[in-house]
Amino acid sequence: MEYRIEKDTIGNVKVPRNKLWGAQTERSRNNFKIGPQASMPLDIVYGFAYLKKAAAYTNAELGVLDTKKRDLIAQVCDEILEGQHDDQFPLVIWQTGSGTQSNMNVNEVIANRAHILAGKTLGEGEKTLQPNDDVNKSQSSNDTFPTGMHIAIYKKIIENTIPGVQHLRDALDQKAKALKKVVKIGRTHFMDATPLTLGQEFSGYVAQLDYGLKALKNTLPHLQELALGGTAVGTGLNTPEGYDVKVADYISKFTGFEFKTAQNKFEALAAHDALVETHGALKQLAVSLNKIGNDIRMLSSGPRSGIGEIIIPANEPGSSIMPGKVNPTQCEALTMVCAQVIGNETAVNVGGMQGQFELNVFKPVMAANLLQSAELIGDACISFADNCVVGIEANQERIDELLNNSLMLVTALNTKIGYYKAAEIANKAHSDGTTLKEAAVELGHLTESEFDEWVKPENMIGDLNKTF
Amino acid sequence: MEYRIEKDTIGNVKVPRNKLWGAQTERSRNNFKIGPQASMPLDIVYGFAYLKKAAAYTNAELGVLDTKKRDLIAQVCDEILEGQHDDQFPLVIWQTGSGTQSNMNVNEVIANRAHILAGKTLGEGEKTLQPNDDVNKSQSSNDTFPTGMHIAIYKKIIENTIPGVQHLRDALDQKAKALKKVVKIGRTHFMDATPLTLGQEFSGYVAQLDYGLKALKNTLPHLQELALGGTAVGTGLNTPEGYDVKVADYISKFTGFEFKTAQNKFEALAAHDALVETHGALKQLAVSLNKIGNDIRMLSSGPRSGIGEIIIPANEPGSSIMPGKVNPTQCEALTMVCAQVIGNETAVNVGGMQGQFELNVFKPVMAANLLQSAELIGDACISFADNCVVGIEANQERIDELLNNSLMLVTALNTKIGYYKAAEIANKAHSDGTTLKEAAVELGHLTESEFDEWVKPENMIGDLNKTF
Amino acid sequence: MEYRIEKDTIGNVKVPRNKLWGAQTERSRNNFKIGPQASMPLDIVYGFAYLKKAAAYTNAELGVLDTKKRDLIAQVCDEILEGQHDDQFPLVIWQTGSGTQSNMNVNEVIANRAHILAGKTLGEGEKTLQPNDDVNKSQSSNDTFPTGMHIAIYKKIIENTIPGVQHLRDALDQKAKALKKVVKIGRTHFMDATPLTLGQEFSGYVAQLDYGLKALKNTLPHLQELALGGTAVGTGLNTPEGYDVKVADYISKFTGFEFKTAQNKFEALAAHDALVETHGALKQLAVSLNKIGNDIRMLSSGPRSGIGEIIIPANEPGSSIMPGKVNPTQCEALTMVCAQVIGNETAVNVGGMQGQFELNVFKPVMAANLLQSAELIGDACISFADNCVVGIEANQERIDELLNNSLMLVTALNTKIGYYKAAEIANKAHSDGTTLKEAAVELGHLTESEFDEWVKPENMIGDLNKTF
Amino acid sequence: MEYRIEKDTIGNVKVPRNKLWGAQTERSRNNFKIGPQASMPLDIVYGFAYLKKAAAYTNAELGVLDTKKRDLIAQVCDEILEGQHDDQFPLVIWQTGSGTQSNMNVNEVIANRAHILAGKTLGEGEKTLQPNDDVNKSQSSNDTFPTGMHIAIYKKIIENTIPGVQHLRDALDQKAKALKKVVKIGRTHFMDATPLTLGQEFSGYVAQLDYGLKALKNTLPHLQELALGGTAVGTGLNTPEGYDVKVADYISKFTGFEFKTAQNKFEALAAHDALVETHGALKQLAVSLNKIGNDIRMLSSGPRSGIGEIIIPANEPGSSIMPGKVNPTQCEALTMVCAQVIGNETAVNVGGMQGQFELNVFKPVMAANLLQSAELIGDACISFADNCVVGIEANQERIDELLNNSLMLVTALNTKIGYYKAAEIANKAHSDGTTLKEAAVELGHLTESEFDEWVKPENMIGDLNKTF
Repeated sequence: MEYRIEKDTIGNVKVPRNKLWGAQTERSRNNFKIGPQASMPLDIVYGFAYLKKAAAYTNAELGVLDTKKRDLIAQVCDEILEGQHDDQFPLVIWQTGSGTQSNMNVNEVIANRAHILAGKTLGEGEKTLQPNDDVNKSQSSNDTFPTGMHIAIYKKIIENTIPGVQHLRDALDQKAKALKKVVKIGRTHFMDATPLTLGQEFSGYVAQLDYGLKALKNTLPHLQELALGGTAVGTGLNTPEGYDVKVADYISKFTGFEFKTAQNKFEALAAHDALVETHGALKQLAVSLNKIGNDIRMLSSGPRSGIGEIIIPANEPGSSIMPGKVNPTQCEALTMVCAQVIGNETAVNVGGMQGQFELNVFKPVMAANLLQSAELIGDACISFADNCVVGIEANQERIDELLNNSLMLVTALNTKIGYYKAAEIANKAHSDGTTLKEAAVELGHLTESEFDEWVKPENMIGDLNKTF
Repeated sequence: MEYRIEKDTIGNVKVPRNKLWGAQTERSRNNFKIGPQASMPLDIVYGFAYLKKAAAYTNAELGVLDTKKRDLIAQVCDEILEGQHDDQFPLVIWQTGSGTQSNMNVNEVIANRAHILAGKTLGEGEKTLQPNDDVNKSQSSNDTFPTGMHIAIYKKIIENTIPGVQHLRDALDQKAKALKKVVKIGRTHFMDATPLTLGQEFSGYVAQLDYGLKALKNTLPHLQELALGGTAVGTGLNTPEGYDVKVADYISKFTGFEFKTAQNKFEALAAHDALVETHGALKQLAVSLNKIGNDIRMLSSGPRSGIGEIIIPANEPGSSIMPGKVNPTQCEALTMVCAQVIGNETAVNVGGMQGQFELNVFKPVMAANLLQSAELIGDACISFADNCVVGIEANQERIDELLNNSLMLVTALNTKIGYYKAAEIANKAHSDGTTLKEAAVELGHLTESEFDEWVKPENMIGDLNKTF
Repeated sequence: MEYRIEKDTIGNVKVPRNKLWGAQTERSRNNFKIGPQASMPLDIVYGFAYLKKAAAYTNAELGVLDTKKRDLIAQVCDEILEGQHDDQFPLVIWQTGSGTQSNMNVNEVIANRAHILAGKTLGEGEKTLQPNDDVNKSQSSNDTFPTGMHIAIYKKIIENTIPGVQHLRDALDQKAKALKKVVKIGRTHFMDATPLTLGQEFSGYVAQLDYGLKALKNTLPHLQELALGGTAVGTGLNTPEGYDVKVADYISKFTGFEFKTAQNKFEALAAHDALVETHGALKQLAVSLNKIGNDIRMLSSGPRSGIGEIIIPANEPGSSIMPGKVNPTQCEALTMVCAQVIGNETAVNVGGMQGQFELNVFKPVMAANLLQSAELIGDACISFADNCVVGIEANQERIDELLNNSLMLVTALNTKIGYYKAAEIANKAHSDGTTLKEAAVELGHLTESEFDEWVKPENMIGDLNKTF
Repeated sequence: MEYRIEKDTIGNVKVPRNKLWGAQTERSRNNFKIGPQASMPLDIVYGFAYLKKAAAYTNAELGVLDTKKRDLIAQVCDEILEGQHDDQFPLVIWQTGSGTQSNMNVNEVIANRAHILAGKTLGEGEKTLQPNDDVNKSQSSNDTFPTGMHIAIYKKIIENTIPGVQHLRDALDQKAKALKKVVKIGRTHFMDATPLTLGQEFSGYVAQLDYGLKALKNTLPHLQELALGGTAVGTGLNTPEGYDVKVADYISKFTGFEFKTAQNKFEALAAHDALVETHGALKQLAVSLNKIGNDIRMLSSGPRSGIGEIIIPANEPGSSIMPGKVNPTQCEALTMVCAQVIGNETAVNVGGMQGQFELNVFKPVMAANLLQSAELIGDACISFADNCVVGIEANQERIDELLNNSLMLVTALNTKIGYYKAAEIANKAHSDGTTLKEAAVELGHLTESEFDEWVKPENMIGDLNKTF
């Protein structure tokens, strides 16, 4: 491979000739050969592009950067955001814990690309822009990386997670309403219980997701606060007056989202509780989704030897050996995502708790886990909704068969004859293998017509209007 | 031991003669010998006492329970809440996952104690109250246990966790303000960095706890929703009309806290995402507290060979072998609590994700973990505040010594001579073992007087008014 | 309350008059009001009693303690081990992270009790034994606490966990063998699959526990290594030559278990990877037990609307509202224990990873979580075995009904007519609601007699001798 | 894009014209758009390639596959293992939880590639090999996926994890030996303690990794057991006699590793405790590595205001804003990896505990997390060893300064004058700011020459020969 020489404060480094990155990126490539290349999420690079452009504008407005440099920086940032330079960010998550090297990767790519835009050749002459003095002006890795990750995560949650969960929530809600009158046996302890409707059951899932969405939205204000302007330790050293508020405004303008400068920059650098908080809500969603996915898997079990109260779409052959098998594959993908998110939760917590003094140096691992969770939940909800939920149908025949057999209909008699006599009836029917009515009448606790009047599944489901 | 005979729908059971509990409690005692006795938290029993009384009042008001029974039930509940019957609840967490047996424990104790209050002897004649038909009227374990746990947890958080965290937050805030002008070296990557003040450093801790408290409060509305009225599967079977709203009002009245009936009872029985949500906030606090405890441990390290910038109270001899040793014991207790809470988080998540159909049967383990976390955080914050934080003093001499030695003061020169020359100065001073000023002048990058003018730690800490 | 004065190197402390503990215990009581009193497990106190006695014997043998003092120490240790002084250990887990105060609690109780045994009154005159110089001779909290916890945990695992798991393993094995020929439908993806026998299904559970026991036993050698002799930082300062090996021998002698001195004392104080390792195996068992508990819950679901292939014992009324309900309560207790253990795993990991320099100061929280997991698993396995597994019966009628209906028997035809034609048959039977045989013949893929010859569930279960 | 038509038992599917995959792969691509494409690790695909070839050889040897088909299958498998078809495996982790679609992806690629090798054009005529009947002969997804993942994980651990950890262990060992006589102050509770040598400190790290390696190796036998031969539910339906043992032999032969057929196939399909077990050991390593990384970070802290007892290599400029800063970046990368592994641990546990009946359907997520942990640990150890540990140097000047100042040297006096008088000396020196000797003499507890004789750091470090 052909190289050119780049240098930094430590010395010279050979860099692949046509790559836009510089000395520090190359050092990082060599020093951190851990896991697959380029694992640092591009979303964070894009977050950097927004903030570098915003910083350039703010610096120019506050008189510490000339507009020509500003425009060069902004132009490269726009190119990055268009995806033109995706292959110029080869670094991994497992680098310095402040993300310094990814910050420098961005600084170097901007400086080198600007050099070309300025009509020069890579490596030729003085750099048009200095990576540290110009591109990184009024910034530190310590405030840029958290800013970049907040932008990336907020964007992901707004554009991917929330719409995905909302989409599934709406699909479940529609299904709940469509099935609201389908009376079926309930199950508690995985055992037969008193009846409810399929729609009521699904309404519980909808409620879970509503709570989860609310919990997720509760965490957004913390995420909307940006560290930028804190520079090295939170004091804002080397920033012009008014910089922090203004740069947050520019970021809001460029991203189209509402960000603001963090109230306390010391917290914003030294702790990433905002990420801990947001992932906590994603984890709550994972807990909910695991329950929903599991229920639907079990409700659809069969075709002949399971619960079988609902029918889910047959999207693919289920087995490589058992012909004709259909499996709840969307439930499986969803619940695997949940397992991942619950694991990521621990990773984020473990990273979050280990900040020291003025800096938390688990930034990349925390951000990467959060981005993965946010994306997986969003994507999996869409997949689950579209490839499973919308196609769910009630298996009316099976539902009726199970409902009418149920011994737990006896519960309706509690208020008529008391719990103990009701239990006697259920126990007798169970051991004799008869119907409740037969047992009830045989025991003399009530007449056949009393039974028929009192034990009606459709009267045991409460008031549908409370839910729908 | 002497026994009396109690019975339930399965048959007769020998119960210790003078104990107020009945057949089902005794069965549970025998069937679940897992871990220490009576591990089911009393807080949950008290939660039950509130709700049983509220249910009795509601049932009476709605005409399904006579007032004499209501008053007997209420009287026993009041006795329970006064702690008179603490030894009548011998059951463990590791029982049925719906907490049925603890519900029956309460029902039986109320029925048997009422029998005595009615002037009868334990085991004599017809029971004055039927545990299932009277005490449990309009209820199921499936809605009472979650109601009891919501009451218990909400109360714990309001009375213990929030005041504890607030107390620590205020102690830190007071300390931050007292130390706001103490300029010291900052540390990032555990390495020397640019200066800030001790007060700024502490302000970050205050901010962490402010965010944590806000996050915790965000979760309360979900916790304030009560399952009661859902009975067996969420449909409210066997409850009189209007019961759910009214019983929540009575619970609010009796507890003095604002509760309301759950919007969706199916969710309230089948999922305990409210607990998952609240524990998520406790976990965030644990993450924050771990960082704070760790920092204070390290800032106080010494007395002669550590960081030593602050002095913490010497509350006890630190070592059984090393005479005169003082240790950051409060930091250690606090961070051990954090480890526990982060573990409990996983337990709560694992329980929460495994609900099936109409019921989550991990209620006791989830509730017990949440109560423990809430109590430990509250208590540990008080202990840490009172026995450590309020006694913290700046070690001014040490602080000055470290500050003035620091090579990172060179950062102030970035905007004067650029990052690269500044690095040259720092590197030279480092390898020569000289001061920055000496290196700067020797390199010819600036004059002595320029150095003195530009490199002033007290000018490198930003605007204190932004924080204080 | 009446007090006496005790003192330590910091000064005087008022201690409840008749309590055996001294100044440092009392300081700890006052300084760490976190959670319930006396939460430090007694098992650890007993571990200390063994080691204090062993240290006294070793010290005497090596000529640094006179035999009169040795005998006094030994006598009190024996009393402690008989449970005579359980109420003299009031401290909590949430104290100094080295457990120094619990070490001093033991030292003080031994010294004060020895004073009484020597015929003196508490608080009268010179102490017969000095807590630090005599009782703690050749020791530090830093090596005694880990030694005490290793003894306690090893004992718990040998006496409680392993026998409990083995007991359940044997119960499952017996059941597997009893049910080895009961052919039933298999289920993969919770969907009907090819047949196997109930015994084969149960044999999988047995295998899980066998692997788990093996994994647990693999961790014991690390746990059998004792830190004692490392004193303050691992160097063994202030111990006589040969002390570490000899004291481990005495501990082995007194406990009846085989312990040996740790190969590397620096590791033994600064890291508690032995606990991390052992808890890892407990967690594996929890993972296995959760699967087993869940399966049995689901296999027994019904009585009329679930899987219902096995019948579990009805140990108690299942519901406070639904008469006659039987629930898989033992499965629920077991799986709640699993959730706790998986949570404790995170707590142990989080504690284990945060050791610093020569000491890990998360000892009490790590030890307490490990002891809880070890006890809960042991107890829960016994409870589950005795109250559930031994009473399990096959529901032959239900099993046959589900087996004979199954479409997945078609898999037997793969090797005769190929996967694609077999799938055609299954799909046709499914959509027509007919039997496989009808579909097969109608499609012309085989004759009725071929079907009868080729599709025999009892020929589809492989070789039972491989398993039994 | 141009398409060709492929079909499966459900119907026709359009597949990109030149891709080797078939109908089921394409369905999966469309049905599971979750996260980045092709996230299913290639290591697992390679595991499949080994087993497909082994199955073909076994089938041929047992007379159920002709040798021409065998050779075609083997040839494609070899091509896959050479990396020729990496872009033919586009599926994601988040698919069916049995990995059926990845199994079919492999089956389809083999069949289609064989068609080309047989001289045909993709999509032309009868397939030369049937994906289900030939390539998948005597197999099911349910036994192939676990086999593939065991092969992949075992290989990764043998080739990457163990050598990586061993490499770091050896680097630390060499460093420990080189520094074995450098006496320095010890630290417990992050506070000054009695002395030890740098080499002793490092020997503790070596011991941690030795235990970790042993723990990891303990888990390998479980991992070496292969599910293959269990087919759909563990019974081995549709396999020829002797198949399972023989196919494991072929896999051993082709991979060069020792595998054997699982003792109990029901466990091998329904539970993945082998993965839980192995990840438990990886997590233990992560716990150890986190401690090591943290210690080295703190020991090297400075350059002027931290502990500073060791000097680590300056591999890159540490800060984008602070000139001349050097950071412990390798420690940060390493500890971030640890946070990830501890998170993955939870994901693996959560997946492992949710198997149901005859199948665990969290296979892909479990395997992917385990592979990631195994690779990250291996890589990070190499990076940390080569870029940090080998370059560590003692900062002798700083070490001596801190050692000689230390108050904890007083501990040497315990055995001479007792703990209480020793404490008096330390306390006096601390409050007066004097040396221990001055305080000792002033208090009259010993003479200057006694002090000089008794208090010698180099005599307080125990016997180096015990460790080295």
